[in-house]
Parts: sequence; structure tokens; C-alpha cells
Amino acid sequence: MAAVKACKILITGANRGLGLEIVKQLSEDSCQKRHIYATCRDPDGPKSEALRELVKKHPSVITIIRLDADDPCSIKESAKKVGSLVGENGLNLLVNNAGIVANGTIQTSSVEDMKNTFNTNVIGPLLIIREYLPILKTAAKFSGTPGMSCNKAAVINISTVAGSMTRMPSIYNQFPTLPYAVSKAGFNMLSVLAAEELKTDEILCMALHPGWVKTDLGGEEAALEPKDSVEGMLRVIGSLTEKQHGGFMDYTGETVTW
Amino acid sequence: MAAVKACKILITGANRGLGLEIVKQLSEDSCQKRHIYATCRDPDGPKSEALRELVKKHPSVITIIRLDADDPCSIKESAKKVGSLVGENGLNLLVNNAGIVANGTIQTSSVEDMKNTFNTNVIGPLLIIREYLPILKTAAKFSGTPGMSCNKAAVINISTVAGSMTRMPSIYNQFPTLPYAVSKAGFNMLSVLAAEELKTDEILCMALHPGWVKTDLGGEEAALEPKDSVEGMLRVIGSLTEKQHGGFMDYTGETVTW
Repeated sequence: MAAVKACKILITGANRGLGLEIVKQLSEDSCQKRHIYATCRDPDGPKSEALRELVKKHPSVITIIRLDADDPCSIKESAKKVGSLVGENGLNLLVNNAGIVANGTIQTSSVEDMKNTFNTNVIGPLLIIREYLPILKTAAKFSGTPGMSCNKAAVINISTVAGSMTRMPSIYNQFPTLPYAVSKAGFNMLSVLAAEELKTDEILCMALHPGWVKTDLGGEEAALEPKDSVEGMLRVIGSLTEKQHGGFMDYTGETVTW
Repeated sequence: MAAVKACKILITGANRGLGLEIVKQLSEDSCQKRHIYATCRDPDGPKSEALRELVKKHPSVITIIRLDADDPCSIKESAKKVGSLVGENGLNLLVNNAGIVANGTIQTSSVEDMKNTFNTNVIGPLLIIREYLPILKTAAKFSGTPGMSCNKAAVINISTVAGSMTRMPSIYNQFPTLPYAVSKAGFNMLSVLAAEELKTDEILCMALHPGWVKTDLGGEEAALEPKDSVEGMLRVIGSLTEKQHGGFMDYTGETVTW
């Protein structure tokens, strides 16, 4: 089984749901020199308690960093802080996981929900990629190995089939989440264009669908446990090469059509 | 050659570029009972002079309506006005043509450009479809014919290959228009989901790529004259049936992959 061997990893939205589970599984594997920067909006708030508990178990492996994907200043500040912490080898893996969902249809979607989902799910990741690019480039240069991999330097964008033009129509009745779907289609384009821009630096970039998971976002009826989704995603992430650069896959390794 | 025979047609962004050319060609054909509602932000401003001149030639065929795709109130007001003008047969064809472009890359795209393109190119059309839906439904019911066509009731979304995840990477170097591309990917999702919602009312909905056209938006180096692009698009629009519902085509009638 392919494993994520990246040393320095940053995960956004790490205080709950899939983000928290990713931090958990990565902090429990046996990879040496591993350090995880787990970001969330409010590190001291009640919604980050589970993450703080996890840090108590692995104090030398996880550092909590404040980052609000909806606030450009906090993104800049977090990148400055992480830049000073990662050291000369840079950041190997950035997981753009933070995101929000909003329900609605043509008839009911509010302008506010349209704007909020776009800000958090698209503009946030755009600024995060931009601000963390210098230390991703550092990692790519430092590795000295040719080609692309998540152990060298990579941006993984946690997307969804709800952002797929070919997949969303058949699930729209069950999931009338127009603001979310529109923002995730935009996010997929961001992922594709980031891949174009990052390829000269040999930084891998792709979009990953986690499945329909039992989280605050996915709801109770979801088919998958976070544990199983994240095990699958980490297997996929660990196996990526330049062949998957710019692509869209799900947690089982299947290609998702746009 | 298939022709657009729709009686009541509304075109947004009708004061220049492709929108103006669509109004021009539709007002010059021989279709009886034709009436065109040509909308623009500022009907009395200098940028609408060519449209005002066109109205002078065809005063009984074209009515100019104020509509700013970036202003929900103006969208609501325009729909109220057009609703009172179209009469009991409703609106047959809504062409979501208004749009803005913004250049940028991961490194350079401004938050303002991201927000502005999304507001005008996605939220605007969402609200326009919502507000005009009652009179589109009226037209669909009134027609009494089964199936879908632009002569019955339809929403045509003027999109672009820049919103295609499969096509944009290869043209990104030449057209570094990240905010525009991201907004148009979101617009394509809007088109797909609107198609899902409108199908029970037999209102046709699809996305159309006009080609790269010599307009203020496309620039001087573009390959196509507005006249040729619009001739092609009207041919495609006139030929659409339920088979193309929810799809993405270009002005020559070729399918565009998402």
C-alpha cells in the first residue's frame, strides 16, 4: 500500500470532520521527521477541542495554526508563521480541506450563501496556494528527485462530485446544494489552473473527492465513515505521480469526470 | 438552415459586442410577432448609443430595458417591467449574455476581480433565471407543443471554453484569465443545475460558447467577427431540441467537453 511519506504537511479545516481525521491518521503513522500544521479558524474555541486533545497525544508532531479561509490577512499571517517553522526544507504537502456547504436551488439560493461559499471554497484556497507557494517551491527544489509526488511537493484540493458537471445532475434531487456545487465547480477550475502554473516547479496539484462521508458537512445519512474515507484518500495521495497532475480522482483512486 | 422563430426574446448585455449583434440579427429577420427586450446597465449612457441607434431603425421590434446583472434590485425591476410588456404568451427565449472578463493568475488575481466576475457572471444569471422563470413557464404552457425548443421556452447561457476544465489548460498561457475562467466554470454548473430544475416545465436550458470573437471582451486579435459568431449561434439556437438540454456546445454546433 502506498503511504504518505511527506515530512511537512499542512491541512486546513483541521479541527473537525475529514480534516481532523487526516491529522489523526497522519500523526499516528510511523513516519519520522513528520510535522503537521493543523489549521483552523479558532484554535482556542469549543469547536477545536478534539484537535487540541489530539495535540496532547502527539505534541511533538502537530502544531495548531490559526487560519480563516475567509480572511486574507489570516492566510498571510499563517503562511508567515508556518514559513518560519518549516525550516529550510520547505512544505511538502498542502491539503486544501477547509470548506463550507450551503443548500439551495435556482429558486431558493440566497445571494449571501452564493458569496460565502465562493469566498471560503474558492478565493480562500486561491490565496492559500499563493501564500504557501514559496515554501512549496523550496520543498520541490530541496528534494532533488525528478518528477512529482506528494512526498516531494504537492497541493491536494479536497473537492467533491457535487462540483462535477457530469455527476451533479443525477444527485441534485437528493442534494439540492446549488451554492456549494457552483463553488466547487469553480474550485475545480482553480485546481486545474494551479496545476498548469505549478508544473514548471514540479509541484503536484490535483482535486480529490472524499466520498459521501458522515461529518457535520456530509450529515448522518452519509455512506462512509471518516476513517474509511481518509484511509482511502491517504492511499491515493501516497500513490500520486505526475500522471495524475491536474486531475480529479475519488478516495478509491477512480478518475472523476469534470 | 434552422432559424430562431421565438416571438418574445430577452438578451442581457445587449448594448455592445455579441449582445448587440444578436439583437441586430434577430431584429432584421422576417419573423412576425417578434419582440426583443434588449437589456443593459445604462440605457441612456454613451456605451448604449449603438443600441439606441438600432432601436431607431426597428422601433416596433426592440425595447431597451435597464438591467444591471450585478444589482439584484435592477434584475427584479426589469422582470416586473418585461412581465407587464410580454403579455399573456410569456417570454420564449432568455439569452444570458451579459458578462465581464478579468485577467489574472494564481499569483496575480485580485480578490476584487474574483468577486466581481463571480457576481456578474454567476449570481447575476442565477437571479435573472429566477426572476424571469414565471414568464418562461407561461410561454412553455402557452405553446401547447410537446418537447423542448428555443421557439417554445428556453434559457441560453453564453459561456466560454475558458470555463471548460478540459479545454482551459491548453489556452491558459495565451489567456491568463483565472477569475473569468473560475466564474465561467461556476456558470456552467449553474446552467447544468438550471437545466435539471427547468426540465419538468419543458424549458430548454444549455450553455453556448460563441468562439473567440473580436469584441471589447475578446480583443482585437480574436479569430472571429461578431457577425459570424452570432450567425453560427443563432443557427445552433434555432436547431436545439431536448437532446441538447443541459449540454454545452459551441457556435458551430460541436459539443464542448466540460
